[in-house]
Amino acid sequence: MSHEPLVLGIDAGGTSTRALLSSARGESLGFGAGGRGNPVSAGAARAAVGVLTAVDTALATSGASLADVPVIVAAMAGMQSSANADWLLGPLRERGFRGALTFEADLLAIYFSGAAAAAGYAMVSGTGACMIRVEDGDVVGTADGLGWLLGDRGSGFWIGQQIIRAVVEDLDGTGAGTALTPRVLEHYELANPSATREGRPEALWRLVTAAYDRAPIELASLTPAAFEAAQDDDAVAIGILRDAGEQLARSLRAILRAPGPLVIGGSVLARPGVVRDAFLDTLGEAADDLDLRSVGDGAVGAAMLALRAHGTSADEAVRERLTATLGRWR
Amino acid sequence: MSHEPLVLGIDAGGTSTRALLSSARGESLGFGAGGRGNPVSAGAARAAVGVLTAVDTALATSGASLADVPVIVAAMAGMQSSANADWLLGPLRERGFRGALTFEADLLAIYFSGAAAAAGYAMVSGTGACMIRVEDGDVVGTADGLGWLLGDRGSGFWIGQQIIRAVVEDLDGTGAGTALTPRVLEHYELANPSATREGRPEALWRLVTAAYDRAPIELASLTPAAFEAAQDDDAVAIGILRDAGEQLARSLRAILRAPGPLVIGGSVLARPGVVRDAFLDTLGEAADDLDLRSVGDGAVGAAMLALRAHGTSADEAVRERLTATLGRWR
Repeated sequence: MSHEPLVLGIDAGGTSTRALLSSARGESLGFGAGGRGNPVSAGAARAAVGVLTAVDTALATSGASLADVPVIVAAMAGMQSSANADWLLGPLRERGFRGALTFEADLLAIYFSGAAAAAGYAMVSGTGACMIRVEDGDVVGTADGLGWLLGDRGSGFWIGQQIIRAVVEDLDGTGAGTALTPRVLEHYELANPSATREGRPEALWRLVTAAYDRAPIELASLTPAAFEAAQDDDAVAIGILRDAGEQLARSLRAILRAPGPLVIGGSVLARPGVVRDAFLDTLGEAADDLDLRSVGDGAVGAAMLALRAHGTSADEAVRERLTATLGRWR
Repeated sequence: MSHEPLVLGIDAGGTSTRALLSSARGESLGFGAGGRGNPVSAGAARAAVGVLTAVDTALATSGASLADVPVIVAAMAGMQSSANADWLLGPLRERGFRGALTFEADLLAIYFSGAAAAAGYAMVSGTGACMIRVEDGDVVGTADGLGWLLGDRGSGFWIGQQIIRAVVEDLDGTGAGTALTPRVLEHYELANPSATREGRPEALWRLVTAAYDRAPIELASLTPAAFEAAQDDDAVAIGILRDAGEQLARSLRAILRAPGPLVIGGSVLARPGVVRDAFLDTLGEAADDLDLRSVGDGAVGAAMLALRAHGTSADEAVRERLTATLGRWR
């Protein structure tokens, strides 16, 4: 191994974590994945395990040492201050790290995974939904990201909640019939007997009980039912997905200013189809000013942020090199 | 004490419980209150304490014995089957009860608190929102009552969720300014500093954190802020309350058939004002066929149900006598 300076980018999420070791010119030298990496949602001890698993794997694949790494950037939601960094900085120091650790917003890593320009937009619609506006490489505007109880409109949770409400209305006859109903009952492993109770089908009561037996956020797992039913031309499913696309466009519009790249993460807008079409329709002419790109995660962007923090050029050529050379590790 | 047959009605709720001992002709002989009485939400052990506290107090005030009570009706949500009655029947047997214990829907007790006719409607909008249609003294239709995650449209929770969403939109400038904002920040004991983070006011981030630090259902406690702001002509608050009234009317309309009494419980529709006006406007001509009455709880109705179960006449004169004589106990 040479001893040229290396940087490490960490993309730490609520369910999984990625660490990417990069050379100064943007060559991916090592990559590792780990489990839950967000101390806010997973707790510091569990998040440390997730992040360090990814870091150790990235170092092992590269053969490098943390002593050669002057800068680490960790991108994660809700940890933009470095005030309580000990949970992560402590174990990194034990591994020989003597450089600077910085935290950045998870959406900023999504942004730089898809764009090198210092200004633009990033949005994620997965379980939740959040959008940011980037200027001078920093977050200057935020839309939604309010969580399932207060917002996340157009997210997987939001779609799942609309789905189960539509199924309840189908079952009690106050709404349209929908192919979502058998799919959702199957999801909860419920039969649909002909019995009724207090004027409503037994299946409705059981569905309500099953939904409350789980954490609210798990409604997001119903989302695939809408995509499937929409492919079979189910009007209710198509309506829900169109609404989701419109909600996402409306949230984004609140922070749109100048033209720029729009980097999109998360599963809801990832595939072409109803949500994406409605999203673009609702954006209207504003969509012409945006250069849309989809990314899988923020691993490349976290490495880009680390290069920026190191004062190294992180232009489009570097971003493309990182993306291309990362391919060999996964 | 005479040894004429007595009946006991129990109105067991999620936060408090009432027990009313009645003579065969509808005279309130004893009344008691207790804590949480619903085994579904409070657990069987805690619910037993709540219910038995109310029962013991009712017996003590009357000087009667459970040996003189051939029929007990316990009205509570989600316990319409007597399959798992042991948590309550066991302790009642230990207290000398040798009669029959029956469970009924909580809304049926609300209904018979306000009406003696065998057919009509009852609705509650408090923390949640639910409506029933009654025929032959039984529940034959249900609307909403789906809980805060799936429905309860127009309920206190629903109003609270609209309130906090409106305040978020006020704070980040995507919605109208509203007098709800200072009220809600005060509710959460939050200041409103001028600092911003990621393009949004610091107060917004703190509000979101404060909301998620509490149980979702606690959003219902924001409801008084809307009633207060509406009295000061705040357009956002008035809009939310009007929507709530419309939602409640729409839910009710789904089960409306014949004319009849409509018994209303819960705090949201209890007072005259915006919600009630919008509710009646939305019902339109259907409201002419309904005889609206408001009741405070289901204590009288539970005793009416117990009289019916005992095969005793429970007509309007009995209901009025129960209501009038209950007055002496509280």
